[in-house]
Amino acid sequence: MKTPKKPALAAESDRTIDIYVKAAEIFHEQGFDATSMSSIAAAVDLTKAGLYYYIESKEDLLFAIMNYAMERLETMVIEPSRQIADPRQRLESIITRHGRLLTEGNKAITILTDEIEGLKPKHRKEILDRKRVYFDFVRETLEALRADGQLRPVNTTVATFSLFGTLLWLPRWFRPDGPLSSEQVIEEITRIASGGLLNNCAKN
Amino acid sequence: MKTPKKPALAAESDRTIDIYVKAAEIFHEQGFDATSMSSIAAAVDLTKAGLYYYIESKEDLLFAIMNYAMERLETMVIEPSRQIADPRQRLESIITRHGRLLTEGNKAITILTDEIEGLKPKHRKEILDRKRVYFDFVRETLEALRADGQLRPVNTTVATFSLFGTLLWLPRWFRPDGPLSSEQVIEEITRIASGGLLNNCAKN
Repeated sequence: MKTPKKPALAAESDRTIDIYVKAAEIFHEQGFDATSMSSIAAAVDLTKAGLYYYIESKEDLLFAIMNYAMERLETMVIEPSRQIADPRQRLESIITRHGRLLTEGNKAITILTDEIEGLKPKHRKEILDRKRVYFDFVRETLEALRADGQLRPVNTTVATFSLFGTLLWLPRWFRPDGPLSSEQVIEEITRIASGGLLNNCAKN
Repeated sequence: MKTPKKPALAAESDRTIDIYVKAAEIFHEQGFDATSMSSIAAAVDLTKAGLYYYIESKEDLLFAIMNYAMERLETMVIEPSRQIADPRQRLESIITRHGRLLTEGNKAITILTDEIEGLKPKHRKEILDRKRVYFDFVRETLEALRADGQLRPVNTTVATFSLFGTLLWLPRWFRPDGPLSSEQVIEEITRIASGGLLNNCAKN
């Protein structure tokens, strides 16, 4: 009989989050399929048995990491941006806050995009449904801008995907030791993305 | 002693390209590490020995696919766009042509982005050097627009990466059976990306 497991998501300790972040780094480097539980255990200074105290399987670990990453996305980007009534400021808040999350180097955020195929169908659907809520939130923000006469004549679905492309590409090229700071890069990206979507000429 | 191999890149036959495209689909679905040469051989109706007539190893196959994909990028996007003297039209040509390449469903183009880590360092450098030529070409096009007073005040490095993000995200979400045709999506993306970069207000 299996010993009862700690629930993966309730009351996550610093230690659990440390395991998620380190495991995410290894998944990111080696790919989910090629990663062994032994190599994760070694990276977090646990025996394999010790690691299995925290988590039931490699797939459960991936799912727990993605839930943790979605929670960060919701807490750091979506919830604070929802508070902003003005759609123009809301869009800027989304881009800036998501940009910060993506440049802080937490690989749990990165594998949320790149390793979704590693999940079981049921878990994958749960994560995709949560991502969908975010997608809809961004698209509704663009629709609010359209209703307000501030959006250029663009299709809001394509525009939302384009914005996600620009943002989610960030971790692939941004280097913290590069010539531009993350705040400078995020400011540039906000300017470029807003410029592509907003009717700036009408403002001038 | 090994039998001499056909050179992987010279005078590629339809059959060779068919193997590249089908193998790319499997790498894309299963990931490079998790893919066996047997499953590729089965997909292209060859015995494993037959497949090894075309290619020396799984890594060589990945490298050959990426060379083929780079050649398509160079032939279909870079070379025709280089012929265009006007930087505004050149930028539109780059976005439109690269968008077409990315929406035509050829997974060799997709894994060029996603499976680069599967290459040996020497091969990876060769591919990255060719990608770098493309990056510089796009950035120089933006610099030409700046010199011409047509660029909004953006950092051209960030702008080039942002454009690549928007484009390279396309295969992740575009569905040929979706509500918008690839030409409609490409037109939208061209409008959004140019809008983010070009001084359209000055034109009005």
